[in-house]
Formats: sequence, structure tokens, C-alpha cells
Amino acid sequence: MTAYDDLMAHTRETQALAQVMGRLGWDQETMMPRGAAPQRGEEMAALEGVLHARRTDPKIGEWLDTIASDTLDDVGRANLRHIRRSYDRSSKVPAALAARIARVTSEAQGTWAEARAEDDFAAFAPTLSEVLSLKREEGQALATGGDVYDAMLQDYEPGTTGAELEAMFGAMRPGLTELRAAVREADAPPKLEGAFDEGAQMKLTRQLARTFGYDMSHGRVDKAVHPFSSGSGLDVRITTRTNEHDPFNCFYSTIHEVGHAAYEQGIDREYLLTPLGSGVSMGVHESQSRIYENQLGRSAAFTGWLYTQMTDAFGDFGVADAETFYRIANRVSDGFIRTEADELQYNLHVLMRFDLERALVSHDLQVQDLEAAWNDRFEADFGFAVDKSSNGVLQDVHWSVGLIGYFPTYSLGNVYAGCLNEALRKAVPAVDEDLAKGDTTAATGWLRSNVQTHGGLFEPREVVKNACGFEPSEAPLMSYLNSKFSAIYRL
Amino acid sequence: MTAYDDLMAHTRETQALAQVMGRLGWDQETMMPRGAAPQRGEEMAALEGVLHARRTDPKIGEWLDTIASDTLDDVGRANLRHIRRSYDRSSKVPAALAARIARVTSEAQGTWAEARAEDDFAAFAPTLSEVLSLKREEGQALATGGDVYDAMLQDYEPGTTGAELEAMFGAMRPGLTELRAAVREADAPPKLEGAFDEGAQMKLTRQLARTFGYDMSHGRVDKAVHPFSSGSGLDVRITTRTNEHDPFNCFYSTIHEVGHAAYEQGIDREYLLTPLGSGVSMGVHESQSRIYENQLGRSAAFTGWLYTQMTDAFGDFGVADAETFYRIANRVSDGFIRTEADELQYNLHVLMRFDLERALVSHDLQVQDLEAAWNDRFEADFGFAVDKSSNGVLQDVHWSVGLIGYFPTYSLGNVYAGCLNEALRKAVPAVDEDLAKGDTTAATGWLRSNVQTHGGLFEPREVVKNACGFEPSEAPLMSYLNSKFSAIYRL
Repeated sequence: MTAYDDLMAHTRETQALAQVMGRLGWDQETMMPRGAAPQRGEEMAALEGVLHARRTDPKIGEWLDTIASDTLDDVGRANLRHIRRSYDRSSKVPAALAARIARVTSEAQGTWAEARAEDDFAAFAPTLSEVLSLKREEGQALATGGDVYDAMLQDYEPGTTGAELEAMFGAMRPGLTELRAAVREADAPPKLEGAFDEGAQMKLTRQLARTFGYDMSHGRVDKAVHPFSSGSGLDVRITTRTNEHDPFNCFYSTIHEVGHAAYEQGIDREYLLTPLGSGVSMGVHESQSRIYENQLGRSAAFTGWLYTQMTDAFGDFGVADAETFYRIANRVSDGFIRTEADELQYNLHVLMRFDLERALVSHDLQVQDLEAAWNDRFEADFGFAVDKSSNGVLQDVHWSVGLIGYFPTYSLGNVYAGCLNEALRKAVPAVDEDLAKGDTTAATGWLRSNVQTHGGLFEPREVVKNACGFEPSEAPLMSYLNSKFSAIYRL
Repeated sequence: MTAYDDLMAHTRETQALAQVMGRLGWDQETMMPRGAAPQRGEEMAALEGVLHARRTDPKIGEWLDTIASDTLDDVGRANLRHIRRSYDRSSKVPAALAARIARVTSEAQGTWAEARAEDDFAAFAPTLSEVLSLKREEGQALATGGDVYDAMLQDYEPGTTGAELEAMFGAMRPGLTELRAAVREADAPPKLEGAFDEGAQMKLTRQLARTFGYDMSHGRVDKAVHPFSSGSGLDVRITTRTNEHDPFNCFYSTIHEVGHAAYEQGIDREYLLTPLGSGVSMGVHESQSRIYENQLGRSAAFTGWLYTQMTDAFGDFGVADAETFYRIANRVSDGFIRTEADELQYNLHVLMRFDLERALVSHDLQVQDLEAAWNDRFEADFGFAVDKSSNGVLQDVHWSVGLIGYFPTYSLGNVYAGCLNEALRKAVPAVDEDLAKGDTTAATGWLRSNVQTHGGLFEPREVVKNACGFEPSEAPLMSYLNSKFSAIYRL
């Protein structure tokens, strides 16, 4: 056994235990009896303790010092890159600070939930200040003199910077607000009306999952309050939800989560339980979920096929033809909530959060001014005013649990999806013909071969660039949104 | 923090991780996608490694040496007793031997399954010899000069001995074979005929679980190939199975597993995630499952109520009255398989295995002679011959995975159930009146207060003795079986 072999054996066991932790999370949201929560908390804390000890084990440092990376192939070097990044991170953050962050964010989530229920930002502000201050301290430790927000970003999107995102998002915002304003003036498509049996929704949603290539022998579909995908390798489970009056919520949640799950399921099996065996970043992950959901799933071609499937499942549901159905599936509505936003407005939500959290971290914005800043920005970009905190600054859990630097990866994922969609349609010109028949194999196969299979082998931006053959930018997404919504809204 | 506090904090985390392991086992049998098996194997192996390291941590020995047990209360002393027993066990068995046993038994299970499928005991014999030899070596290490089989028993039933069981089982065998022979000569009740909707079976089975006090807010009921109960404390899940033509299989599997689960759920919550927080032995556990299933669940009183529930659920199913229904639910049939055996014959299966495994351990019986010995004994006790190995010596998985000393706890559980039933009916004279109305609260409440709540506080035999007010023996069970089956078969 070489030092590299020892390091990989240690890492493989840690990865296996991390999968167990993910499985407990899945169980908690889908199967766990309600009264089990306090015990589950102790179980997860004990396992988290084991994982933390393994990830900060000084043996890792010794192995890393011993290994001559020039004796390794590409895969070996990529493994080392991931392991070194994770180990360096844990070495830089004092254990006492890490423990404090864990404790404070765990309580802060409860405080946030109460404040949201009461629509009372002031009740949450002191807690948010404490979380921010601790995360800033952690960021400073990680940045070692560099930009603190950039250091925070590395947890979610290694290799990206605040400046790069600022340029990208700055280029998107005027076009998005302009398109949004134009759409708001135009005639809207009708809304979907009526009731859709929830059992039939689940049946069709499982069919949609299979249609998008989800491998049921290595996964399963259950219901949960908030849809998610969980696990890597041979066991990647998704959840969805049903609402009798909103079948699109079920179907597009499923297709979105299948995008995440297909990424995990599509990774080269050689990388199982290694650092290369899961999606490389939040942004690239979101690019897969969003291209499945939007560029493929909400295309005129695919909605045409979905229209016939829904007619088969539910009978006549009051929509005259496939074109009207396509317009309904892409309807732009006023709304306060990010997670319910349509393709056009979604990024405006994210861009706002990115600017606000960056200003908070740099002290350019104080926590006590955050709600006013949120509300001003919202009205400027969306054209109407926030009515209450739960529809505004208190809507998302992220900041309360210390996820700072996470929001921008949502829009980066959309940008990457725009790039990949452009490249895919050049590489596979018959995509729409196939989608119109409910056949996604050419599209999802191209994504698997060009993105998913690589797992963590390349850096995030690199994998998108290699797949596309050009430097990723916001231009393809903006051009796609402009042409799509101009057509739907007859601008 | 005293040494006792440190020891208990360590133990509590280990118990929490052990619960996680149990949850993975549950998931594997109920929810896991088929293709996930290889990854799950690695996950469980990694967690087993963590558990093993924690259980053999030399710090435990240091804490145990430091603690003055006379400063502790009853609960503290009971905790120490359990921790010391487990630590001593792991200290006595060399790590290399433990690892070898884990590896060999894991492979032996596959060899056994193949041999069973081929009805070929000779193909399994060399593997069984190897398992036996390793387990004997382990038993010798544990026995430190004492009886090897007695040492093996301690893993499942602390405090019992082979000699004690031999006396008990020896006193049962003639009565059981005689009663069985008489029943075989008598007119048998009819069999249940027809089809019973499996969805309706599951609905009624959930109602039965609740009727027997199963707490659904700390558990759930799912289907699995082999019914089991899993978990302790706040999350105790059970499984059952359905067969369109055999609803009793579903209902009595459920009631049996509810007996196990009610034990775990009924333990004093103060003991959560401590060594006292789970059932004290296999025998006491089985006493709860069996008294729920048989002395309560198959009583004339309860089957009378079940008859009306089944009539409500399935309509007229061809059984004229409650008395006939009672006789059908207690029908004695010829059969080869222990797990399918009725209340009367079940112990004959177990007594045979006890004698055979004890003879194997002591070298009085050679593995190559095991099948012949099995078949002779079976014909002597049951009155007909084994037709093939899968119906005989190869039917149970236990020996292949190194469970030697486990079988007798099944019959010990039945003996304890007989004792508890006698004491219960004295303490709560109205049990049958209640059961006839589908009300088990007085009966299960008595068992909870007198047995279940204590968890691991007392030694196994002690908890039964305290509950009954007399020394446990086989007499109450034998008298119960004689009077019950003499009445049903009109002997």
C-alpha cells in the first residue's frame, strides 16, 4: 500500500459514511415517524462527529505531504485536489469556531422560522448578525488575507469569484428587468384550472422521471414537503410533491430533481465513493436540473408531448391545444417567492440576494437596514412592493443556517444551462423532433457524455467550457429567454 | 465531568450510531432500490468499523477502572454491568479472530443460500465446519476455561446455561411430542379458504398494531419479505407481509412484531440511548412477541373479536362462527419449517436445534453426520420424514452466520411467555372480557409496567421472576398448551 492507497481507503470510508448521513436526511423528510425527531438529532450529531474527526484527521496531512503527485494520473491528481481542498479548509478553521457555527446556525434556523411565522424581521436581526459575524470570521480564516466573500464562495463553487459573478449578473439585470416589464404589459396566457387527481399525478410523474432517464433500479420517487434529490452513486433518490390544483408543480419538480439525480447517476462508476463520485459544484448541479426542467422540459416540443400525456391521464382538462398548453406552462406571474418563480423572473430574485449578501459581508450594508434594502430592490426590479417579511427578506432559510455564497450558484447554474443548451442544439439538431415524441435520450445522453460522466474530474467552469467548446457567459441564456418569452408573449 | 459521565457520553454516541446501523438494515429490507446493494455493503462496513473501534476503545477500560461503582445508584450500576460485559467480551476476542469470523460468516451466508437452493448439504458442510471451528475458538476465548457453549449463550441470553436449558427443554419434549401425536390422530379444524384483498389486509393489520398498543408516532408499518422489528427508543419500525390466501400470516406476523416493538417503545424514556434503553435479552424479547401473538392474539376471546373485524373487512369468508374461526386460527398442520410452525409444534423445532448445535460445539456430533442426525430426530419428534435438505437442516440461516446459542432463546421466550401469561391472568382477571371487545390495554399495560419499562435494568431471568412473583419454569407453558389444544382438538 502506498500513501496514496492509504489516503484513498480512508477517503472511501468517509465518503461511505457521508452517504449514510445523506440517507438519514432523506429518511427524515420522507419516512421517519414524527416523534422520532429528538433521537434522530442525536444520531445525526454522533455521525457528524465521526465525519468531522475523519475529515480533520492529521493522518491526511501526513499522507498529502508524502505523496508525489507527479506519479499520479489525471484521476489521481483530481482526487488529491479535492482532498487537499477539503483538508486545508478544515485546518484553517479553528475547531472552536466550527463548533460555535454549528451550534449557532442550528438554533438560528428555529429563530428564523418563528420570525417568519410572525412576519417580524426585527426578531431575527440579532441572530442574523451573530451568524454573519461568525461566518465572516470563518471567511477571514479561509481567505488568509484575500477577499472574504470569495473565500465563502469556494464552499459551493470552487474557482469562481465575486467580481466575476458581479460582471455576469450585472450584464443580465437590465435585460431581465426590461423583458419582465414588457411581459407584464402584454396579454397573459390563461391559467390552468380544475382538479387533477394526485394519484394520477404521481403515476405520470414516475413516467416523466423515467422519460428523462432516471434509473429506478438505483433510485426511487417519494413525496416530501420540499422536493429534493439525495445521494450519490448507486442510490440516488428523489422526492416530489402533489397539489390537486397545480400538477405542473409536481411534474416540473420531478423533472428538476431528475436533472440533479441524473447527474449523480451519470458519473463514471469508476469514481464511486471517491471525491470524483459526486457533482462537482452547486452551479454545475443546478445547470443539469435547470436544463432538464426548462430548456428541455418546458420547450414547445416537450410540452406538446406532455399535453397528450396529461390528456390521457386526466381526460379533457380545459386546454384547447398544445400551443395554449405551452404558453400556460411558461406563464409569467407576479409573485414574491423565489422558489415559485418562473424561468424569466427567477434570476432577478437571485441577483438581488447576491448583491445584498455581498454587501452584508463587506459591511457596506448593516443587518438593521437589510429589510429596507431588500424591499427597495424588489420594487425596482419587479415593479411592485413587498407586503410582508415572510414574502420578502424572511422567505429563504439559507442565511439563517450560514449558507452565504450559495445563492449565486442558482443563477450560475442557469447561465451554464443556457450555454449547454446552445451547444447541445448544435451537436444534436434533432432534439426538438425527439422531445415532441417524448424521447429525451439524445439530449440527456449528450449531457451525460459531456458533463455528468466526469463527476469531479475537472473544475466546474472547465467542465462546462469543455462541453460547450466556448467560454461560458450569460449571453446564450439571455438570448434564449428573450426569444422564448418574446414569442410566447407576442412582444 | 466524572469518569462515569465521560463513559456514558461515549456510550450514548455509540448507541446512537448503532441505531443508525439498524436504520440502514430497515431501509435495505423495505425501501432501498435493488441496484444499491454493493454501495450499501460499503456503507455498512464503514459504519461497522466505526462501531467496533468505539466499542473496543481502550478509554472504556480506563474509565471502568476509575469508576467506584458503590457511588452509583441502581441505574448506574446496571449501565456499568452492560458496558463492562460488552467491553470484556471485545477484549477477550483477538481482533484478528473477530475480523476472520466477520469475513467467513459473510461469505458463508452466500454458500448456505446456494446449497439450500440446490438441496445439497454436502456443499455447505465444509463452510459450516469452518464457521463452527472459528466460533468454537471465540467461545474458548470467552469461556476462559469454562463451558464453551455457555459462553456462546451469553451473547443472546446473559445468565443462562446449557445445563439449565437442557433440564427445561428435556422436561418439555415428552409432553410436546405426546400432545402433538394425539392432535395428529384427532379431527382437524378446516382450513381458511378463498382470497383476501391485500390492501384490506394491510389496513386491518395497521388497526391490529394500534389495538395492541403500537405507537405510530414513534414507528411505522411497511411490507418486507421477512417480518421484523427494528430500532429502539423513539423510532421502532415493524414490517409485515401479505399473501392473498393467508391473511393470518399478515395479522399474526404484525402482532408478533408489535410485541417486540412495544417492548422497545415501552422502556422508560430515561434510558434512551443508554445500555438500558433496549430489550434485555433475546429470550425476554421473544416472550413479549409470543405472548402478544399467542396467549393474547390467538386466544378464543381475541379471535372472537378478530372474526367480526375480518367479516367487516372481507364480507362473508366462509367461516360459520367465531368458535370455528378460533379453531382455524390455531390449526396444527404437518410441516417442515420452523418459521411456519404453530404454537404447539414450534418448540419441538427449537429443542432439536439446541441439542444438535450443542453436540456440534462439544464435538459429540460431527458436521458430516449433522444431516442424518437432524433427519432422525425430526422423524422421531414429528412422526414423518424430511423430504429434502431445504426442508431440513438447510432451512435456517442462523448457523451459517455464526449464530450459535441463539436458537434456544426462541423456546425460552415461549416459556417466559407462559409464565407471564399465568401471572397476568391472576393480576388482571378481566383480560378475556377485554380481549373479546378488542381492548388489550389492561393486558399490554400490565406487561409494560412489569416487564417492558425496565429495559436492561435487571438481568433477563430476574425481570421475568419479578413480574411473575415465582421462579420461571416450563410448567405454565406446558399446562397452557395442554389445556388449549385438548379443548380445540377435543382430546
